[in-house]
Amino acid sequence: MPEARFSPLPPGSVIGILGGGQLGRMLALAATKLGLRTHIYCPDPDSPAFQVSDRRTVAAYEDHVALEAFARSLDLVTYEFENVPADTAAALTRHVPVEPQPSVLDITQDRYTEKSFVRSQGLNVAPFEAVSTPQEIAVAVSRIGYPAVLKTRRFGYDGKGQALISNSSAIAPAWSAMGARPAILEAHIPFQKEISVILARGRDSTVRIFDISENRHENHILRSSIVPAGIGEEAAASARELGSALANALGLVGVMAVELFLVEKEGREHLLVNEIAPRVHNSGHWTEDACLFSQFELHIRAIAGWPLPEPQRYFDVEMTNILGPEVEAWRDFAGEPQTALHLYGKKESRPGRKMGHVNRLKLRKMG
Amino acid sequence: MPEARFSPLPPGSVIGILGGGQLGRMLALAATKLGLRTHIYCPDPDSPAFQVSDRRTVAAYEDHVALEAFARSLDLVTYEFENVPADTAAALTRHVPVEPQPSVLDITQDRYTEKSFVRSQGLNVAPFEAVSTPQEIAVAVSRIGYPAVLKTRRFGYDGKGQALISNSSAIAPAWSAMGARPAILEAHIPFQKEISVILARGRDSTVRIFDISENRHENHILRSSIVPAGIGEEAAASARELGSALANALGLVGVMAVELFLVEKEGREHLLVNEIAPRVHNSGHWTEDACLFSQFELHIRAIAGWPLPEPQRYFDVEMTNILGPEVEAWRDFAGEPQTALHLYGKKESRPGRKMGHVNRLKLRKMG
Repeated sequence: MPEARFSPLPPGSVIGILGGGQLGRMLALAATKLGLRTHIYCPDPDSPAFQVSDRRTVAAYEDHVALEAFARSLDLVTYEFENVPADTAAALTRHVPVEPQPSVLDITQDRYTEKSFVRSQGLNVAPFEAVSTPQEIAVAVSRIGYPAVLKTRRFGYDGKGQALISNSSAIAPAWSAMGARPAILEAHIPFQKEISVILARGRDSTVRIFDISENRHENHILRSSIVPAGIGEEAAASARELGSALANALGLVGVMAVELFLVEKEGREHLLVNEIAPRVHNSGHWTEDACLFSQFELHIRAIAGWPLPEPQRYFDVEMTNILGPEVEAWRDFAGEPQTALHLYGKKESRPGRKMGHVNRLKLRKMG
Repeated sequence: MPEARFSPLPPGSVIGILGGGQLGRMLALAATKLGLRTHIYCPDPDSPAFQVSDRRTVAAYEDHVALEAFARSLDLVTYEFENVPADTAAALTRHVPVEPQPSVLDITQDRYTEKSFVRSQGLNVAPFEAVSTPQEIAVAVSRIGYPAVLKTRRFGYDGKGQALISNSSAIAPAWSAMGARPAILEAHIPFQKEISVILARGRDSTVRIFDISENRHENHILRSSIVPAGIGEEAAASARELGSALANALGLVGVMAVELFLVEKEGREHLLVNEIAPRVHNSGHWTEDACLFSQFELHIRAIAGWPLPEPQRYFDVEMTNILGPEVEAWRDFAGEPQTALHLYGKKESRPGRKMGHVNRLKLRKMG
């Protein structure tokens, strides 16, 4: 659907969301606030997003009959995860605009394609090579050096699909742990900080960039995001610029997160692009309470062709994920002053599962 | 259900809401944020709140079969409007806790009972009398004086159910305009300002009071609420105190609004209680964007027995209702800087109908 023909979706329009997890849920809440309706599509009948959606479809992503009925009920469709199967996206685009465009998915679903794209934009990434056999890993590691990280090309998240290779005897086990499939070998970067840029890009190419967050992980799962990030203004400006450049190069419409490694070399801060997620992102949850406009609202506004306001940040903030059984302490979280609690309505609290988060505001009342 | 036996509702509990308008919708959004589920009950199949609720019942408030099934699906029930029929409330209390308690409804559903209650608490109200015939109006007006206002005892809102009586010839038309039913005659108060106190009271009697708002009406419909109100600190303190006293006297659990007239007499500001609404209130919509905790979240927390945080206000703010066809300018509202737009998802924009609101923040970014 050509951009020029798209007119803003008026209130009452129906936005479809593929995926019914917490991101879909928070997107649905944001859409509703703006008077838009939502239709969530997810295979899991217990999807948290169903609890706040106007319509629900429980069906597999490969069910083309269900997908067509879903598409026909919508004015626009978006997604909460970038691993939407290409066939699914193609089936939807026959009936309804999909944003961000499936071409963005093609690039970001595959780590090799994504890193190649980033490098083609003149941006820094850790040295990487595509590998398809243990022999190719051995050759690649001879160029990249130890330690290196073997990653699946697709479907990795929260550290899943990654194996560290510290010496040659680790190659074979890493290869089989990753499923003996085409993969990517990357240099292991001893970074000082991980930060992320969250931005929204509108149909008219307006780009709005949230303040950079600093992210702390535990067991490869995001534990907290701190804003402002403890980085220099030069690094922050570079991060904003490269985020903006990537969004423009992708022709993105919607919200995107870019995860970056900050490496200090010879007293200066350098940035390496680690990952692009063409969607709302866990490291942007702080925007719900520290800004007038959250990442969720900006995503909905962007895809719907609405005005994209400056997402002013009013508070310093630390977002902390509530993982697995930690949710049992909900009363303690709810009782903390200056702390906004968000729970996702998930029934089971498996270890490491994201059950909710808190946004702890750090500043005093405005005078 | 005795208070002592109530333990806080854990996440995943189901809160029923009677009424599916914008207040029910915003309550459902707030409950969801906290990981609670909602079940909305409303006779209108197009209810805006249905769009964000986990479960929906479309049935009349007098349908006791539907009410029982509804009650049995819930852990707790609340309401978005105070005109819940007494039979409906009674039917629900047989199966599930109702908050605020039906006893609060008994007092606030009837203007005469409500004003008598306020007066019994030693608080000021405009002179009033119950009247049941045109003859009684004539007698009452001889004591209260012209101009006076004849109001229905029940089901008045947005200026409906009120008629001004400026002289004796206006008595008969006012009486028939009000349906020739038992009514209340009140002195017409030439007030300087109308303000409101919104507060939440928890099961443990904690009271949290939002900053006082100043309300402007047009054609008897709220047009805007401005915070802080342009009143002295002494009047603000009195307003907070009387709100708190009323909530305690009612044994309220949940959010309540008290509308007050501010009258200047001999250089001092006096307060008269105009109306109590034992529910979230249009004049409290500014809390969604100017405070970390909104009136909707505090209501849900209060009834669910959760901790009640201080609802700190971070911004000066003006809330303006979007009425009827004004909603067609949604793009202009959406494009205003520092302005949060809330639309209610209503299909038809009849003149004067509340279609949404904007919260315009007035302060600069925090330094």
